[in-house]
Formats: sequence, structure tokens, C-alpha cells
Amino acid sequence: MEINNTYKQDKEPHMGFEKELYSLHDEIGLTVVADNRIGVLHKLTGIISKLNGNILYTQQFIKNKDKGLIYMEIEGIDNEKKLIENIRSLDCVLDVEIHNSLKKIFGKRVIIVGGGAQVSQVAIGAISEADRHNIRGERISVDTMPVVGEENLADAVLAVEKLPRVGVLVLAGSLMGGKITEAIKRLKEKTDVHVISLNMFGSAPKVADLVITDPVQAGVVAVMAVAYTAKFDINKVKGKII
Amino acid sequence: MEINNTYKQDKEPHMGFEKELYSLHDEIGLTVVADNRIGVLHKLTGIISKLNGNILYTQQFIKNKDKGLIYMEIEGIDNEKKLIENIRSLDCVLDVEIHNSLKKIFGKRVIIVGGGAQVSQVAIGAISEADRHNIRGERISVDTMPVVGEENLADAVLAVEKLPRVGVLVLAGSLMGGKITEAIKRLKEKTDVHVISLNMFGSAPKVADLVITDPVQAGVVAVMAVAYTAKFDINKVKGKII
Repeated sequence: MEINNTYKQDKEPHMGFEKELYSLHDEIGLTVVADNRIGVLHKLTGIISKLNGNILYTQQFIKNKDKGLIYMEIEGIDNEKKLIENIRSLDCVLDVEIHNSLKKIFGKRVIIVGGGAQVSQVAIGAISEADRHNIRGERISVDTMPVVGEENLADAVLAVEKLPRVGVLVLAGSLMGGKITEAIKRLKEKTDVHVISLNMFGSAPKVADLVITDPVQAGVVAVMAVAYTAKFDINKVKGKII
Repeated sequence: MEINNTYKQDKEPHMGFEKELYSLHDEIGLTVVADNRIGVLHKLTGIISKLNGNILYTQQFIKNKDKGLIYMEIEGIDNEKKLIENIRSLDCVLDVEIHNSLKKIFGKRVIIVGGGAQVSQVAIGAISEADRHNIRGERISVDTMPVVGEENLADAVLAVEKLPRVGVLVLAGSLMGGKITEAIKRLKEKTDVHVISLNMFGSAPKVADLVITDPVQAGVVAVMAVAYTAKFDINKVKGKII
């Protein structure tokens, strides 16, 4: 039996992620807790750029009314001791910590949006398949957004553009079209996120990369599409309906 | 039949999230695509603080080697036109957009970590329950991390501290203890994230807020614990094993 040409031995790393994953030696994680006030992030980034740090990732949010947490992944810092001293000297700073980058913990993401019933079935497939790859050293997370209504679903699809590490989006519902279809088109223009759709009513499946009828299989395939331990190349099956 | 005292009519909003959700009038979303170089975030935050903007949320990441995407939620901006003009004038900036804050899209998060089999069962309960509340106007997302090994699981639990909008963490496995238990203790010290554990071997369930044997129910209860449309107060059942 010949190996089907949709499978190949030497898979190209997706999104350059694996390459990044194995060159973390120069990268640090930084967590700062500071007062919630104007200008904190500006002062902090000033210290980092003075020490030649290139900020690869930032996640900042308000923990409660008074405090904010800032987590960063930074490469190229000249002097870690100086970094921590300078940050500590800011009067708005309550806590500073340098630690390993969390990039390898968060990993690549599969996002499932749509109706609760289908989202949970796609999640079963995706989580089981992610587990199989994570056992072999990958880090694939499965995130879901059970969303109601055309407007909200279109917003959720567009929001994927602003999220880091997303490899694939699965549309899990019975009817999607109109604004959702427009949102998918925009997402595909702006990013290289793969879009898999369940077989459903409406125009959304027509603009997806791949249409899969069984939700569990859609979840499995979504993970295979981003896993470098899977011998599957979504580009070779684009436009198919199964 | 009397209503059990673990349920109450007037539920206090959790994490102040709902209050924030309904006071977005002053808050804008900002998306900037810029060159991947040192100092970009410093220049951008300088412009924002000069216009009196308080940055409530930041998500910044590298889209590919050359480009970074920065998404922010900002309150108090004096002059939106000036903001966009000043950002556009930076030579590192490729694209700028002001839009609605995405806070109401991302919503509160339930995070499930552990082994694939249990994680997917907890997810079924959580996604179905989230859907029921989202239909009534909430935004609850369910995120999973199928993780292998004590070290990795402990790292994943600690990483929850750096994530925004997390209301509850569910530990879904058959054996957790040692470093994982230490990580849970730290997470509980540093945040107000609720921790629900499946009934399992090891010391982890002993430091959780609640131990639930059935994984589907654990997922349902996790969502009830953060949903303001649920008449359930986790503080009233803390320490229980069901």
C-alpha cells in the first residue's frame, strides 16, 4: 500500500513555532505587579529597551481595581540583575520576578467557536488528539467559546486575529453565514490561521479551508493540522468536504 | 421545600467583572501592527499616556519574524483622532485600528488541566453549562491544557497566575500531588482563582476548594462558580467532597 500524498514524512514546522520553542536559551519571562495607573507600561518598557530587550510577548491585565499584572517574554536582555533593580526602583511597582519563559507551557492553540452541543463534541476529539501529541513533547491547547448569535459569532471570529499562538479555528454549529462568513474572509486575509467548518447550513463552510461532517473528527483533524508530530498537511486537502 | 442555603437569590458579582462589562462606554480597543524591533511598545505607550489613556489590557505577540501585533483596551483617551494620528506617524507602525473593546467577547475563563480522558469529560460539562449562561447574556469561555507529567502540570498551574479573566481552575486527572500541590497553594496565595479538583489520588485534592468525583459535574459546577446568572456560591461549599 502506498502512502497517500496528503501525508508526508518531513513536515515543515507550522508557524515557525517549533523553531522558536527550541531557541529559548536567550529568552526570559518577566512578571511585574504594579499599581493600576497611567504610564506604568511606558516606564517599564523604557527600562527594557534601554537594556536592549526585545519584547516578544506581553500579557497585561488589571487584577483588581488597584493592581495590574504584566507578564512578558523578552529576548536579548544585556543584564538581568540591572533589569530587576531598575524595575524595582519604580515607585509604582509592587512585585517583580524573572523566571523561565512560559512560551513552552502555553503552546499552540486550537480554538472552537459555536453552539454548545457541537463545540463540546469537537472539543472531545481535539482534547484527545492534543493529549496524544503532547505525550510526545508538544504543547497544544484547546480553547472554546460557546457563542450565541450571528453578531457575536462574527465578533468572536474577528477576535481570533488578536490572539497569540492560534493555529486553527473550528466553526462548530448548524447554521453560519452572513457576517460570520465576512469575518472568516477577513481572518483569512489577516492571518495564516486555518479554518475548519462542520458541514452545516449557511455560507460559512464555503469559505473554510476544510469541511468535516463529524464533530469529533473535526476536532482530531484540527489538532493534526497544527501538530508537528502528525504526518498531515492541511494544505494538501484544502477545499475538501468529508 | 426550602431553598438550600448554598444557593442565594442576589448573587454578588464575581471578580467585579460584570460591573466592568457594563461600563465600557469610555473604553476603546486598539490594534497596532508594527515592525518587530526594540522599543516599539515603549513608543506606543508613550503616545497613550500623553493622551491620558490608562491601559487596562494588553496582548502583544510576534505574528512572524518581522511583524508584531499589539491589542490593547484603553480607558480615558482624551482625543481618539490624535491617538491614531500619532501612532501612524511612528515609522515602525504598519497598521492601526481603533475599535470596540473585545473584553465582552473574551469573557471569563474556566481552565481545565490534566489528562486527556478526564479533561475532555470535564469540558463536556463546562461547555454545555457555559452555553446555558451565555444564552442569557454572559460570556464564559472554557480553555483546556492537556498536560503530561508532574513538572509540566505544576508549571501549567503556576502559569494560570499570569492569565487574565480566569475565574476557576479544574484539576482533571487520576493522580496529582508533590509539586502540583505546591503550585496550587501558590496560585491560591497569589490570586482569587477558585480551584476544583476531581476526586483522585495524591495530595492535590486536599488543597483544592472543592472535590467533585464526576468529571461532567465538575465542569458544570466550575461554570456555575463564575456565572452571575447561576445561583451558586462556591464559598458556601468550600472544603466539600461530593
